[in-house]
Amino acid sequence: MMKEKLTLIKVGGKIVEEADSLNQLLNDFSDLPGYKILVHGGGRSATKLAAQLGIESKMVNGRRITDAETLNVVTMVYGGLVNKNIVAGLQAKKVNALGLTGVDMDIIRSVKRPVKEIDYGFVGDVEKVNAELLVDLIHKNVVPVLAPLTHDGKGNILNTNADTIAGETAKALAPYFEVTLTYCFEKKGVLEDENDDESVIPEINRKEFQAYVEQGVIQGGMIPKLENAFAAIESGVSKVVITAASSIGKDQGTVIY
Amino acid sequence: MMKEKLTLIKVGGKIVEEADSLNQLLNDFSDLPGYKILVHGGGRSATKLAAQLGIESKMVNGRRITDAETLNVVTMVYGGLVNKNIVAGLQAKKVNALGLTGVDMDIIRSVKRPVKEIDYGFVGDVEKVNAELLVDLIHKNVVPVLAPLTHDGKGNILNTNADTIAGETAKALAPYFEVTLTYCFEKKGVLEDENDDESVIPEINRKEFQAYVEQGVIQGGMIPKLENAFAAIESGVSKVVITAASSIGKDQGTVIY
Repeated sequence: MMKEKLTLIKVGGKIVEEADSLNQLLNDFSDLPGYKILVHGGGRSATKLAAQLGIESKMVNGRRITDAETLNVVTMVYGGLVNKNIVAGLQAKKVNALGLTGVDMDIIRSVKRPVKEIDYGFVGDVEKVNAELLVDLIHKNVVPVLAPLTHDGKGNILNTNADTIAGETAKALAPYFEVTLTYCFEKKGVLEDENDDESVIPEINRKEFQAYVEQGVIQGGMIPKLENAFAAIESGVSKVVITAASSIGKDQGTVIY
Repeated sequence: MMKEKLTLIKVGGKIVEEADSLNQLLNDFSDLPGYKILVHGGGRSATKLAAQLGIESKMVNGRRITDAETLNVVTMVYGGLVNKNIVAGLQAKKVNALGLTGVDMDIIRSVKRPVKEIDYGFVGDVEKVNAELLVDLIHKNVVPVLAPLTHDGKGNILNTNADTIAGETAKALAPYFEVTLTYCFEKKGVLEDENDDESVIPEINRKEFQAYVEQGVIQGGMIPKLENAFAAIESGVSKVVITAASSIGKDQGTVIY
């Protein structure tokens, strides 16, 4: 049986935290045909609110050290402010959006990251995505908007990387839909030359990826992003695209296959 | 056809904002048999966060004047902090809770309160509750946890009275379920003597209510609460109970019929 298509878009905080780029995103996302999901970040707003409350934001390897106070901040910003404003914006464009965290309907269960060299605090590593209720809702044309929070099933909310949430959710939906997972970021795609924004690599497979890493063409934060992408492909996701938020709905960016 | 029972509990901010009373509530609510919904407030936390951010909280007739900054505060506190902590707590007790605002799935559409003597700002008066998707989820044993926020369909989130949300949601669910609507507050019920906490009026109909109001026995904030309750009964809600949060699941308080 042919599976129906579903597009899962992950956008970073920067896009959803500025009025102009958020509005553009809401327009482009609304215009996407078929079933869809949006996963968003919100780190800049969290850092801003934390600063206003006199809470210092500590980042290690791009991850926020999440003590109890910081957990409240991200719960308010990701689960409340950013999520509900996106949902209200989509509703105004007749998209039947539903704001969710992984806590809701037990959609994403995680485990608190074990303390090794670094104690990340209330940070979760995804353990399981429960897709059934999500699938039902999607079939009713509900459009989930997922904030990067999960829970441990023992009452603790856990701050969780939005890229990981996007990847794990895409994998969990792959048995039900033909899933395209799109990671939006600042550049137009994976670049062959980091100083040339137009040097987008149009397609890449794992073998090519490894060669690029060995040559030092692909480095830094792009490596875990692509590792996530290949893991998704290897778990049944049909297509992963890395592109700019302004390219949503256009056939642009780097396709991971 | 016999309709199945559904219990809708409305709790004020005080109950959900203190660890002990919240824990008691989560236990009592989890133990309730059958279909259920929780509607919560969060005003004290909103006032506290606003103060920390240097935003003055202005109340008129018990309603919060909601300017743009205050709207962000209540969106964070009601939709994020309070809502998601309740949901995580219920999930830990194996209740499949789903945190919602009226914005999500267009559940509660409202209109911005017209400016007369007072400009309440981003405050909504409920216009319509869309129950269909909620009913589907409830039948799948999902337990909605509703924060007091709605939207106008034009992209604006609106701060909305939680008692009204509870009443309007109960009415919208009445065609599908035999609904008991329980308003929890500080007292054990409607009191015949405000200085005697044990003087609970066990049952009250509209005629008796009017007589009590004329005698001055029922006054102040209890009058709109009871008006809401009678409106719910007259719109098909089976039973309305006014009681203490500590009496959830017990056959106590004042029954409006």
